[in-house]
Amino acid sequence: MASIFTKIINGEIPSHKVAETDDYLAFLDIHPTAKGHTLCVPKKEVDYIFDLDDDTLSGLMRFSKRVAKALEASIVCKRVGVLVIGTEVPHAHVHLIPFQSERQMDISSSKLQYSSEEMAEIASAIRSNFV
Amino acid sequence: MASIFTKIINGEIPSHKVAETDDYLAFLDIHPTAKGHTLCVPKKEVDYIFDLDDDTLSGLMRFSKRVAKALEASIVCKRVGVLVIGTEVPHAHVHLIPFQSERQMDISSSKLQYSSEEMAEIASAIRSNFV
Repeated sequence: MASIFTKIINGEIPSHKVAETDDYLAFLDIHPTAKGHTLCVPKKEVDYIFDLDDDTLSGLMRFSKRVAKALEASIVCKRVGVLVIGTEVPHAHVHLIPFQSERQMDISSSKLQYSSEEMAEIASAIRSNFV
Repeated sequence: MASIFTKIINGEIPSHKVAETDDYLAFLDIHPTAKGHTLCVPKKEVDYIFDLDDDTLSGLMRFSKRVAKALEASIVCKRVGVLVIGTEVPHAHVHLIPFQSERQMDISSSKLQYSSEEMAEIASAIRSNFV
């Protein structure tokens, strides 16, 4: 069965997309610990990040760097942190978290609540800074 | 002034090394949240991971993947998680955490205590699985 992220990639489940290339997609995490908390995924469905082939792994990190630069340009933050746990959804994904406090790097910490309109606005701001 | 990690790379400060290439070094975190908790660093001293040039960033992740495979072969764990916060030491570093519980991915969680002999033994086991 396709992962929830594959369904997002295929447009079967809606998401607030912030960046896309032929091989990768970035969209807002629906349970953000920080404003702009984003997930970067390879379109290839592989469960565990370290089972990605070297080229896909390298490409995922170069894509994540471009997304991180867009986050820095859009969101007030100390810097963008990186987190991969991977046991929540069996499709490799990189959390990019533009944190103001290091506590926001703990994804079991308290989540922020944004309306759908606010999420759309945040995604739009990030998209406009993605190069 | 050289970062503490540059001093470790140069051998001025001792560490329990687990893997090394011309461009990267991996050594045990002295405040581990999990047995085998390892830091991977580029020898080039750059503060923020997303300021690394694309080749160094890609190389760091391919190196981290090789270290993660050695961790999986040495340590009982669910999988190896990835964390980059970066505000503790101004030298980009990837935490590789062979976690059994997702709570261990929070580096403000409780730290494990190992003697120097135990750390040497853990490092040796990981080194023997690094290919």
